[in-house]
Amino acid sequence: MLAYLLRPEIEELIERGDLQELQQTLEVFEPAEIGALLEALPAETAAVLFRTLPRRRAAEVFEYLPHDGQTRLVEQMAAEKERLAALLNDLSPDDRTAFLEELPPGVAQNFLSMLDSKEREVAVKLLGHPEDSVGRLATTDYIAVRPDWTVEQALRQVRRYGRDSETINTLYVVDQNWKLLDEIRLRDILLADPETSISELMDNRFVALKTTDDQEHAVRIFQDYNRTVLPVVDSEGTLAGIVTVDDVFDVAETEATEDIHKLGGMDALDEPYIDASIPTLVKKRARWLVVLFLGEMLTTSAMGYFESEIQRAVVLTLFIPLIISSGGNSGSQAASLIIRSLAIGEIRLRDWRRVLRRELVSGLMLGAILGAVGFVRVALWAVAFGAFGAHWPLIGLSVSLALVGVVMFGTLAGSLLPFLMQRLGADPAASSAPFVATLVDVSGLVIYFSVAALLLSGTLL
Amino acid sequence: MLAYLLRPEIEELIERGDLQELQQTLEVFEPAEIGALLEALPAETAAVLFRTLPRRRAAEVFEYLPHDGQTRLVEQMAAEKERLAALLNDLSPDDRTAFLEELPPGVAQNFLSMLDSKEREVAVKLLGHPEDSVGRLATTDYIAVRPDWTVEQALRQVRRYGRDSETINTLYVVDQNWKLLDEIRLRDILLADPETSISELMDNRFVALKTTDDQEHAVRIFQDYNRTVLPVVDSEGTLAGIVTVDDVFDVAETEATEDIHKLGGMDALDEPYIDASIPTLVKKRARWLVVLFLGEMLTTSAMGYFESEIQRAVVLTLFIPLIISSGGNSGSQAASLIIRSLAIGEIRLRDWRRVLRRELVSGLMLGAILGAVGFVRVALWAVAFGAFGAHWPLIGLSVSLALVGVVMFGTLAGSLLPFLMQRLGADPAASSAPFVATLVDVSGLVIYFSVAALLLSGTLL
Repeated sequence: MLAYLLRPEIEELIERGDLQELQQTLEVFEPAEIGALLEALPAETAAVLFRTLPRRRAAEVFEYLPHDGQTRLVEQMAAEKERLAALLNDLSPDDRTAFLEELPPGVAQNFLSMLDSKEREVAVKLLGHPEDSVGRLATTDYIAVRPDWTVEQALRQVRRYGRDSETINTLYVVDQNWKLLDEIRLRDILLADPETSISELMDNRFVALKTTDDQEHAVRIFQDYNRTVLPVVDSEGTLAGIVTVDDVFDVAETEATEDIHKLGGMDALDEPYIDASIPTLVKKRARWLVVLFLGEMLTTSAMGYFESEIQRAVVLTLFIPLIISSGGNSGSQAASLIIRSLAIGEIRLRDWRRVLRRELVSGLMLGAILGAVGFVRVALWAVAFGAFGAHWPLIGLSVSLALVGVVMFGTLAGSLLPFLMQRLGADPAASSAPFVATLVDVSGLVIYFSVAALLLSGTLL
Repeated sequence: MLAYLLRPEIEELIERGDLQELQQTLEVFEPAEIGALLEALPAETAAVLFRTLPRRRAAEVFEYLPHDGQTRLVEQMAAEKERLAALLNDLSPDDRTAFLEELPPGVAQNFLSMLDSKEREVAVKLLGHPEDSVGRLATTDYIAVRPDWTVEQALRQVRRYGRDSETINTLYVVDQNWKLLDEIRLRDILLADPETSISELMDNRFVALKTTDDQEHAVRIFQDYNRTVLPVVDSEGTLAGIVTVDDVFDVAETEATEDIHKLGGMDALDEPYIDASIPTLVKKRARWLVVLFLGEMLTTSAMGYFESEIQRAVVLTLFIPLIISSGGNSGSQAASLIIRSLAIGEIRLRDWRRVLRRELVSGLMLGAILGAVGFVRVALWAVAFGAFGAHWPLIGLSVSLALVGVVMFGTLAGSLLPFLMQRLGADPAASSAPFVATLVDVSGLVIYFSVAALLLSGTLL
């Protein structure tokens, strides 16, 4: 980012106190770039720079800062009540909600009291929606028109409120109770005769989100309809605000990050990796590691159960990691396929039978491939190096058949566990690769030793 | 989706041949909904329904269909050259590019010849950009104005081309060589005096993408700047088109899906899971399963190397799955953390030292936790059930120390492999959980048996 490269020059200007020159230098940059620069500067220098920004621009820059960058600035400005109040009032409602909801309740209350009564009402309303609901993403910066207005009146409304609105591509038609009647594209208004009434342009066709909708649902709707903005209505159909695609985009990215962390077998981090403290990192990982470790202890019990077989045929132990890891790998593949498909709505809970059929066949084919490779490995080593003793064909067959069974079991476990999770109301992504692998390790050992006991009894066992 | 629910009624209308009633019924639906309905209908019925749509609306609906739905329709319409030509000409350039690039070259050529010379020029230009480049996402449906125009002239341009433009929030100022000079928000134009010259509204501040930029780069820029539309310029700064956030959103979703598939240890599927044929599913998975299987064979060699130790102390084998899986799990956690951070640009290649330091500490702490749990497990079973013989404290210590070593190794391997992949120009997501687990299994066995040999020589070994 450009502004970031100018950091030495900008620090010098601040040190010299040449705020006019500083203001001019900053003018050419994007709010996002100034935000990145503020992040890089020490807290006090950042506050000086922030104060030189014009009021509206300050609010824009503030919206680009991450939450801890925002609090750092606000702390520096604690003494300047008036400036703080101006800043808070200038923020767009959705970004202000995001800032306030992360604060301790007492502090948030304090900030709420700094707002104008009108802005406060909006803020309290947005904060009243459940976390992760569409209501929290809504902004009230839209343009509303009435069906009985003329195009001329609507355009006057656009000129009056257009500067503050998040989009002017779309206007919202509401009745006197603010019930949403239609959405109209500005292009249609611009093309119409100024005397035309808005109701003539209406087709009463619109897609709206509900305030109580889950944010992940909003992601799907935006994707399905390829929209950049959608209106949000409450249970009575009253227009509560609009949601723009950039906010929904953020939700989708966070959602994917959480799923990837969970798939990796840990609690999802709710901050960037590099900002997370080491104790946080350890905590998010240790819980699952210990749970998986306790589960994996069953392998020790399973192997203890087959200890006499192992005593008699130590050669069998050589293939244990090979066999159980193949089950884990095929389970991990199936789980990541199904978890992602469920997450982006490609498949639903009711598709589980269809998935079961597909995975039965896939698992069988994959198992057959690995089983064949496994047999060839045993045969090659036996012939070339005389390994595995005289009974190597039976050992090879045991390994081979165990692989078919373990890979099939891994594939089915990996593909069906996400459905089970969803059915139980849990996040399908919690059936992580390590979780599936642990499950498959235990059952894989049982499968392997049972096959071996069957095939080798009378010879090796 | 509503239209989907009306399917029986609509099929009946088609059967009765009541196309006027059908047209009226369809009028109230969104293009996305009609698209979903078309998908559900048999090919011939779908073609009949599609033909009743007004020309512009047909193009909109077509853009919502997946690629195989599009080809199915086009095949049904093969005889109606004129209607096909109209459809192709009406598609927006980016969606047309997406449709054409998936076709066999001969067929695409055939379609290209149906385009007007102007549309053909645009299509050929867009198809000329490398796959996965921003150029492929660009659409030429934007509004361009000249700096010497008045606001009045610009508004006339909006009225003339606004209906076809993907956005009217932003207009692009170009010189006579179509070099991009600035972007101007329509709201600023609406608010200005009609006689004002465009150059007075210009600040020459804009963010642009390059046609050759990677699409993943575009995702980051849209995220960083919170934009809904960005201009795309070629190497000389000439305006080549615009990219809208909904297309970039699709790119981001696909990217996340690919990363999740790769993390699961397979080649990324490039179609929805439920649409992929079983042979495709098996192919995408078998390659990696076999590679991992061949790698995991080293565990058999490693264990063969320690066979005499195993002969003397079979009790050691009981802990093998427990120890190596803990290494794999910690590696899977670290890999998914780092891969996602690299993917969304939170960390870069140059941060590897910082990550190394953090993961050294985290790995040590996680190893210590599991080591302690492991010792307690051995001690409990030894005291309660008399398991593991007289030397259980030494066995417990071996398991415990091996766990510390294996978890540390797993954590480091999982966190550094993605950097190595990126450095080698490969996708960091290819260092999947199963890949890391395989690596850690082999080294985990070596660590475990080395620790045991050291601690138990003279007693058990």
